[in-house]
Amino acid sequence: MPATRKIRLGVSMVGMGYHLAAWRHPDASAGGNMELQHFVKTTQVAERGLLDMAFLADGVGIRFNDRPPGALSHTCKNVQFEPLTLLSALAMVTERVGLVATASTTYNEPYHVARKFASLDHISGGRAGWNVVTSATDMEAQNFGLDGAPAKGGRYDRAIEFVDVVRGLWESWEDDAFVRDKASGVNYDPAKLHILNHQGEHFRVRGPLNVQRTPQGRPIIVQAGASDQGRELAAATADVVYAAAQTLEDARAYYQDVKRRMPRYGRHPDQLKIMPGLMAVPGRTRQEAQDRYQVLQELVQPVVGLGALANYLGDLSEYDLDGPLPEPKDRRDHSRGQIFIDMARRNNLTIRQLYLSIAGGNGHRTVIGTPADIVDAMEEWFHGEAADGFNILPTWLPGGLEEVVEMVVPEMQRRGLYRTAYEGRTLRENLGLAYPEHPAAAARRAALSQALGSAAE
Amino acid sequence: MPATRKIRLGVSMVGMGYHLAAWRHPDASAGGNMELQHFVKTTQVAERGLLDMAFLADGVGIRFNDRPPGALSHTCKNVQFEPLTLLSALAMVTERVGLVATASTTYNEPYHVARKFASLDHISGGRAGWNVVTSATDMEAQNFGLDGAPAKGGRYDRAIEFVDVVRGLWESWEDDAFVRDKASGVNYDPAKLHILNHQGEHFRVRGPLNVQRTPQGRPIIVQAGASDQGRELAAATADVVYAAAQTLEDARAYYQDVKRRMPRYGRHPDQLKIMPGLMAVPGRTRQEAQDRYQVLQELVQPVVGLGALANYLGDLSEYDLDGPLPEPKDRRDHSRGQIFIDMARRNNLTIRQLYLSIAGGNGHRTVIGTPADIVDAMEEWFHGEAADGFNILPTWLPGGLEEVVEMVVPEMQRRGLYRTAYEGRTLRENLGLAYPEHPAAAARRAALSQALGSAAE
Ligand SMILES: Cc1cc2nc3c(=O)[nH]c(=O)nc-3n(C[C@H](O)[C@H](O)[C@H](O)COP(=O)(O)O)c2cc1C
Ligand SMILES: Cc1cc2nc3c(=O)[nH]c(=O)nc-3n(C[C@H](O)[C@H](O)[C@H](O)COP(=O)(O)O)c2cc1C
Repeated sequence: MPATRKIRLGVSMVGMGYHLAAWRHPDASAGGNMELQHFVKTTQVAERGLLDMAFLADGVGIRFNDRPPGALSHTCKNVQFEPLTLLSALAMVTERVGLVATASTTYNEPYHVARKFASLDHISGGRAGWNVVTSATDMEAQNFGLDGAPAKGGRYDRAIEFVDVVRGLWESWEDDAFVRDKASGVNYDPAKLHILNHQGEHFRVRGPLNVQRTPQGRPIIVQAGASDQGRELAAATADVVYAAAQTLEDARAYYQDVKRRMPRYGRHPDQLKIMPGLMAVPGRTRQEAQDRYQVLQELVQPVVGLGALANYLGDLSEYDLDGPLPEPKDRRDHSRGQIFIDMARRNNLTIRQLYLSIAGGNGHRTVIGTPADIVDAMEEWFHGEAADGFNILPTWLPGGLEEVVEMVVPEMQRRGLYRTAYEGRTLRENLGLAYPEHPAAAARRAALSQALGSAAE
Repeated sequence: MPATRKIRLGVSMVGMGYHLAAWRHPDASAGGNMELQHFVKTTQVAERGLLDMAFLADGVGIRFNDRPPGALSHTCKNVQFEPLTLLSALAMVTERVGLVATASTTYNEPYHVARKFASLDHISGGRAGWNVVTSATDMEAQNFGLDGAPAKGGRYDRAIEFVDVVRGLWESWEDDAFVRDKASGVNYDPAKLHILNHQGEHFRVRGPLNVQRTPQGRPIIVQAGASDQGRELAAATADVVYAAAQTLEDARAYYQDVKRRMPRYGRHPDQLKIMPGLMAVPGRTRQEAQDRYQVLQELVQPVVGLGALANYLGDLSEYDLDGPLPEPKDRRDHSRGQIFIDMARRNNLTIRQLYLSIAGGNGHRTVIGTPADIVDAMEEWFHGEAADGFNILPTWLPGGLEEVVEMVVPEMQRRGLYRTAYEGRTLRENLGLAYPEHPAAAARRAALSQALGSAAE
């Protein structure tokens, strides 16, 4: 009998937490976004909670507009650690939790990305994941010689080839290429080295990668784009999708759409874990949970709230904060903007109400209540073909995550929905994903079994 | 009275060590170049020896030619960790030793490099250094869309602007920019944020860097090029130079030349530490040291020796191994090639003798003898205006470094030439280099003292 399907959990540990006012929380270390110990503590709490992975969002530049002026200087979304260096350090103080770093395909070279993640996979003993993003902001583009971000279509075209090259580089060496026989002086078997020689529209990369095949075969690939092209990329290559949705209907439509695209790429829907973001705020009572959330909501300054909206909808500071959301004039081509507009229209929100609604979850689903409420909400999506797990967005760090680990995780375990110990050593094993056989080894195996088959005839 | 000038020590911890046969040493872990514990041990030994820094050479691709065929598969110069991820991990298991990673200016973007080293500086509490290289091999170029490496002049032009941009990005935030006042909600003082807006021949980079100013003000800059342009870059921007020379005369000429170029950039010669590579092989007796070295020399296969020469002089396998070095037909534009030719001509070496001479130190100075012999050799250069310290090249790791730490370091200390405890917490402090005041803060201070001066008049 197969084990019952379990809910997967990740945590997004960006900066001080997901809530715009996280750094002002009375118990927070206001400068935690640049303190190593803040992240050591956070990943250790994640591991205590048996989470599949800790996920680091990233931008190659500040991604928060200083519009209206003062927005940026009143948030902590200004400085941070670089993810690959930070996660390499955190690999040394954790043992089981997966470590997923974001890296852009728009402003990078595939060789660098392939190397760094392969290196992290070795350092962490098989716990590395790459969140593939295409860097949507103009602010980032301006750090790389451009005036603004390339159009989304072009970014995704490049991303698709980029991922292909990286995966090819990860197959430079077969699992058993390195014999390292001191006596004969043979270090590797040349027949098990594969030169990529990629020649494509965007990249020419010879290879081989100068890193040995990694403990997971290759690092886990995470994807976070929601548009049609983002979904196609996910269906083709991702092991995990980090999604954003507010309602069961939207989440289910997304889930089913992405999974339905997979067979076209010869993939089984179980090979991809879809994990929508979930801001979970637990309390022993509903009132306690609401009170906890309210502490942060009261710390959201209007300039910051308007700043958060400006990133997707343009600057709204000329409008009445307590009036309705106007038709945005300056909207960016980003799936999140539509989520915001839908939220405002659905609930008839004023500008102030809208920014307060997104101040916590930034458009992700938010559940504030008892552990039972939160797990009910998880189950609804998990059993409703809308999620394989959730990417927890703590209001603030590490406290908001500690609350989830101490209150919500035990309730999930009680219901048999969550592991009580890590199943494996690698992120891949813990996600229940198969080790990817090297294509050359697979081909040899197939040829051998054919030969044996013909011999038997 | 000023403290006596002390010898600086670093260690080059590339792969299994510097000797071509290092991985075959009877006591070596043959796969150590891809084992985390190998490097944990190595950096901890370096720290036990109070070394200024552990240095990781790097290539963005395999840099060892498979010429003649089989050369590459009989060495371990094929796979390795990526330096920034590895050093970030090692920062967690060491406390004082500096961590210097190599990064190329030819195949990178300054924003990425500025970020990653700033992040490492924060992670390590002020121990990061960047070894600036321009990536000389065609093998690397082919991983980045090119057929071969760009000409050296162009590489250095780009490098000079690249370093300039990185340094500018490191000055995005003044030391005290972040006030993080929870009560007022002010996270940083906008007057202390500086947008770079660099527009140059090779780069357009707006900034700011999304990392806070680092514990060392900025990471240490190391430079390793030996040509005229390499020296100019070193004189203009480097804190440390890692040089290669065989003779006192060559080392002194290099030392004096680079230091003489510094005043042109408004720099004092003491602001740059020149540390030639030194392969030191100690033994309790000279015979023991020679025997130790011989163990490795006997493990050098001809295909590997020829491979090592081929990287700088082209494939020599058509010539008699025991005949003289012919005029190389296929020489690369790399300063190391000249060192090899000079060695052969000076000592009348056959091809076999030449490759055996460079099998250990790859053209760096090699001293095999008692601790007294080795420290005598150090003193000669140190007092002879040829070196401020040495970059130790252990034959194999970690054993070759352990021997230096256990035998050579005590002899240096006995002679008062070496520290008996780390002076500071950061690499900069241990190197005896001043903290770089932020230019905006310096300007404000100057304006203030002028105003006070005029007021007093
Ligand atoms: C849940 C989620 C998380 C994301 N995280 C990041 C991130 O950390 N860094 C980044 O540059 N982009 C991030 N993105 C942006 C996407 O990579 C993509 O550029 C953007 O969503 C626009 O494409 P889309 O319309 O396909 O979503 C994220 C998107 C989603 C939906
Ligand atoms: C001592 C020394 C160490 C070097 N280490 C590296 C290295 O780790 N990676 C690299 O790509 N190049 C390295 N180089 C090469 C230089 O960056 C440069 O590309 C090469 O030396 C050619 O320039 P040059 O003629 O100015 O020396 C090193 C050079 C020297 C002299």
